[in-house]
Amino acid sequence: MTIEDLHDARLAQRLQHKLDRKTKPVGALGRIEQLALRIGLVLGSETPRLRSPQVLVCAGDHGLAARGVSAYPSDVTWQMVENFRAGGAAVSVLARQHGLALTVVDCGVRHHFAPREGLLARKIAPGTADSTQGPAMTHAQCGQAIANGQAIVAGLPGNAVLLGEMGIGNTSSASLLLARLAGEPLDDCVGAGTGLDAAGLARKRAVLAEVLRRHAGATAPLQALAAFGGFEIATLVGAVLQAARERRVIVVDGFISSAAVLVARALEPHVTQRCVFSHRSDEAGHALMLRHLGPDPATPARALLDLGLRLGEGSGAVLAWPLLVSACAILADMASFESAGVSDRSP
Amino acid sequence: MTIEDLHDARLAQRLQHKLDRKTKPVGALGRIEQLALRIGLVLGSETPRLRSPQVLVCAGDHGLAARGVSAYPSDVTWQMVENFRAGGAAVSVLARQHGLALTVVDCGVRHHFAPREGLLARKIAPGTADSTQGPAMTHAQCGQAIANGQAIVAGLPGNAVLLGEMGIGNTSSASLLLARLAGEPLDDCVGAGTGLDAAGLARKRAVLAEVLRRHAGATAPLQALAAFGGFEIATLVGAVLQAARERRVIVVDGFISSAAVLVARALEPHVTQRCVFSHRSDEAGHALMLRHLGPDPATPARALLDLGLRLGEGSGAVLAWPLLVSACAILADMASFESAGVSDRSP
Repeated sequence: MTIEDLHDARLAQRLQHKLDRKTKPVGALGRIEQLALRIGLVLGSETPRLRSPQVLVCAGDHGLAARGVSAYPSDVTWQMVENFRAGGAAVSVLARQHGLALTVVDCGVRHHFAPREGLLARKIAPGTADSTQGPAMTHAQCGQAIANGQAIVAGLPGNAVLLGEMGIGNTSSASLLLARLAGEPLDDCVGAGTGLDAAGLARKRAVLAEVLRRHAGATAPLQALAAFGGFEIATLVGAVLQAARERRVIVVDGFISSAAVLVARALEPHVTQRCVFSHRSDEAGHALMLRHLGPDPATPARALLDLGLRLGEGSGAVLAWPLLVSACAILADMASFESAGVSDRSP
Repeated sequence: MTIEDLHDARLAQRLQHKLDRKTKPVGALGRIEQLALRIGLVLGSETPRLRSPQVLVCAGDHGLAARGVSAYPSDVTWQMVENFRAGGAAVSVLARQHGLALTVVDCGVRHHFAPREGLLARKIAPGTADSTQGPAMTHAQCGQAIANGQAIVAGLPGNAVLLGEMGIGNTSSASLLLARLAGEPLDDCVGAGTGLDAAGLARKRAVLAEVLRRHAGATAPLQALAAFGGFEIATLVGAVLQAARERRVIVVDGFISSAAVLVARALEPHVTQRCVFSHRSDEAGHALMLRHLGPDPATPARALLDLGLRLGEGSGAVLAWPLLVSACAILADMASFESAGVSDRSP
């Protein structure tokens, strides 16, 4: 699978010209205009239409959670999966607000769910292994989770996906992936997650340093992913790859979802051309991760929102969604100087 | 008219407790939680509901525009008023997206409009006077414009207003109001507006310095407003005061709308308790203005969005609107740890 370079100078020029002729000073809609350009390039249209957007929330548990790297017990993962389905979680409430379809995937939750509507059963195992002892996943498990993510997206309608996750302990995996794949010092990659205190954060740092040492040889993207987990992140990697190949707009949530993009980008450099980074998380490490996800090494990825969010679930992606709709509406529906009979600037 | 202090420690505590029991780590929805708290306090409810939100776009022309302080000719003001009505302007497109009612007010446009639906005729005069020669408005005109704004809001349904404006030359008025009322150096208050080049910006600075000197004695808020104009800003001042008195949520757009709040706050210190600052404009001076609009001198007002917008019209306020709806939805519809049966953090 190779993901093509979306570079299309003629379309970019046509989109820019269209934006510049809208009844506003050139560039006055700021990053909404850049967003319109991006969506137009992804969907290959001067008048892109977002169709049947899909929120995909991937859930999984982490063996490492037993080492006390999270403020919450692992049981919260399955309880929150039930909460997503029941409509009570933040992402459920926000998805309803915007009329977005929500699909929840059990990628490897440590709980038996009876079959039920709105929950896709793609469980690799009931939680990853403890990565202080060995790789979180086998190579085969990792490959299967990626394949699951690809198949799920291939089966979803529409041309946009909003990616979120749930998994007690998964900021640890994301931090480890950032440290390894971006070569950043571990301490700069680790944060308080769901709310560790200072002692908890020190414990988390020590555990993650041990894991990083334990898997010093896991330098290739898929090796690192297998070593550090989790099943939900691997499933999201597959989702990103498939969505990118199909030229869907990919709305990335926070730290964990961005880690999946980091892995996917290491495999296929052009995936980030399809990505809209919805928000900059308050989780330490996300700003650093965004620096590594920009179009080139000198240019960080810029997130749309900066609201101090640190919830995951796709909540930030869904909060940012109306901005994408706005960007398309500006392209499609706003008058031009010519059509509205408005004078352009003085010569 | 005195605008009461909204301070209500018991309601604030109840709102905070309600937010803290939602199924998420404490504070994990960041500024969406702060927004929910703010809206709850304004509307006096633990489950605030935004009803019939109204976008109010006030338009007026500026005598000072003849001095070359804008990149666009004054005729653009009336042409854009027609564009608002016809549905082709950015704010029209965005308001439609979110189902927001849009009211456009001719506060003093230099153009004769035939009576028509969707345009309120509250013209004080066809443009303000040139403030290099004398005050932009007489004291009586200024008072009438404020009274107009109050009456307009009093006649609107709902409990939330989104304030925008249109008026070629009005960044000049806003810069002068900021310099005078906040005591900031003029050069820090002046920006490129709709897109002046370096020479244009230098000319604007020189003209505004002349105006500021000309009206050195206009230090009281209403004196300054009359001296610097414009009719649309004065009408917005009235709108802010009335909306604040009625405890409506006031969604403030960018630099010009914020200048109206700055004047209103100088008259009634508690108005900003009702304000949500929707975005930080790219116009130089807006960040400085927000520093003066915070709850106390040490705390700047924080805007929700930072998207490099510099269009006005209320476009930023409307772009931010879904975040307010989200904040209320979180309060109303999100499950608590108790209701969802989710384990709270480890002791």
